[in-house]
Amino acid sequence: MASLTVPAEIPSVAEDCEQLRSAFKGWGTNEKLIISILAHRTAAQRKLIRETYAETFGEDLLKELDRELSHDFEKLVLVWTLDPSERDAHLAKEATKRWTKSNFVLVEIACTRSPKELVLAREAYHARFKKSLEEDVAHHTTGDHRKLLVPLVSSYRYGGDEVDLRLAKAESKVLHEKISDKAYSDDEVIRILATRSKAQINATLNHYKDEYGEDILKQLEDGDEFVALLRATIKGLVYPEHYFVEVLRDAINRRGTEEDHLTRVIATRAEVDLKIIADEYQKRDSIPLGRAIAKDTRGDYESMLLALLGQEED
Amino acid sequence: MASLTVPAEIPSVAEDCEQLRSAFKGWGTNEKLIISILAHRTAAQRKLIRETYAETFGEDLLKELDRELSHDFEKLVLVWTLDPSERDAHLAKEATKRWTKSNFVLVEIACTRSPKELVLAREAYHARFKKSLEEDVAHHTTGDHRKLLVPLVSSYRYGGDEVDLRLAKAESKVLHEKISDKAYSDDEVIRILATRSKAQINATLNHYKDEYGEDILKQLEDGDEFVALLRATIKGLVYPEHYFVEVLRDAINRRGTEEDHLTRVIATRAEVDLKIIADEYQKRDSIPLGRAIAKDTRGDYESMLLALLGQEED
Repeated sequence: MASLTVPAEIPSVAEDCEQLRSAFKGWGTNEKLIISILAHRTAAQRKLIRETYAETFGEDLLKELDRELSHDFEKLVLVWTLDPSERDAHLAKEATKRWTKSNFVLVEIACTRSPKELVLAREAYHARFKKSLEEDVAHHTTGDHRKLLVPLVSSYRYGGDEVDLRLAKAESKVLHEKISDKAYSDDEVIRILATRSKAQINATLNHYKDEYGEDILKQLEDGDEFVALLRATIKGLVYPEHYFVEVLRDAINRRGTEEDHLTRVIATRAEVDLKIIADEYQKRDSIPLGRAIAKDTRGDYESMLLALLGQEED
Repeated sequence: MASLTVPAEIPSVAEDCEQLRSAFKGWGTNEKLIISILAHRTAAQRKLIRETYAETFGEDLLKELDRELSHDFEKLVLVWTLDPSERDAHLAKEATKRWTKSNFVLVEIACTRSPKELVLAREAYHARFKKSLEEDVAHHTTGDHRKLLVPLVSSYRYGGDEVDLRLAKAESKVLHEKISDKAYSDDEVIRILATRSKAQINATLNHYKDEYGEDILKQLEDGDEFVALLRATIKGLVYPEHYFVEVLRDAINRRGTEEDHLTRVIATRAEVDLKIIADEYQKRDSIPLGRAIAKDTRGDYESMLLALLGQEED
């Protein structure tokens, strides 16, 4: 369930554009006004606003926002305002430019999006960067990391619910053997995780737990970075909400909040499942996500995060 | 350039359907009538015919054709009548069910289609087989073959013309080192061939020839099956017409024509570039492709092949 709230009666697109334009004019920028509009429009509505803004004022709304806003607030507004597939392309590109820590972002995009969304992100990547996502990922990684990441970002999994139980049984056996032998980057482990449908992998892991009495995620808890990546792959594919709760906890509880992670999760999930993630967060940490965020952030950044979380203060 | 010929004035879809229906009725099937219609309609028109046929007669045209026709002629008509993406999904599925020789078909589909067409074929594969193409390919292959084939069928290459010459230079050096060392299945060789755009690979191979005075395809001429697969990959990506000429020559000149290959190439290229392929064929073999086909095939199968080649006898 999404956390995004959209007013029952929204102004016309032209009106939204006028209001945004006025927010940039005069003495200082009216951040509150910007939040009150952009944080309460769907992807389709934001797209229309960007198009109409460009037609009406001959300027790119994103460029205006970039000029008028700053720091974490700016990043959040920009990332949020992008179309979901453009946004994923942007986040993936940032990830391929940085060090290995950002490989988690690639796993996140490859595993928590629907198969079709991942294809659309790859299409947006072509349009924006004149390259393919997989060529940049393959180029910036080596060894086991490449072996896992390239097939993950290249996957176009079957998205249906049908499950082959015999296959689940056979492949849970393979996984159990390999993981018990600590052969984490074995071809078969990667093949199963990178190509099978999410429903099929879920069935395989259920069988794994039933048959071997062990939770594969527990077995992957203490390992090197590659093992952590493998763990993120499985969580992202099968328990995306838990995965996001973990990223949020990590981002918020660190000395000095990790704003990039916080920004990314809130912006990418607000229109998808942030409400469920927030519920899970509260169950896990006994503090509402909104309060945890409010404690750790401030100003317009905080307001925008809470607005996307559907928890605006008045 | 396509070889498909479509009459300037075509009958209405309803009329085409009536005619097809009549071809199935009565004493024996009217194959000539079937050819005169289906072999002269575009993919969009054939799709409409299938839809209208199902609505009008409550029967699937493909099932009727399957019932009424036989042998190579039947296969050709069925494969041709399918939508291009459904057809690729069908051909790929057949390939994953057979032995390694059919890995060439997977390379062909992965490399000679446009990046977008390959994605559409993968989508059609989901719809038809409730699996992903890459999971079936990964499941039926091992070792080097898997290492090459899975990224090839999973690729969604950038389709533009922009080329990075510095990169072409750097990667031609890598390729030359690896190929000279006979390290054919090296990670870097596969990364370059499986992820770079066709334009980029073309630039890389041009630089290869200029800098090292060797043609990579020549270097790959005498090798095992994996080397032959690598060669087909490069030809399919950069010289698709030459690739198809080679498949056709091989299919026709064998003792006993290889009908499956002949059928596949004619059916998949008639609407794309079969005219260019036929010209290349004649240049290479000093015999028109149509004559070579007529010499080696007969009956309705021959007539349908020639019709798709745009060379109907009256």
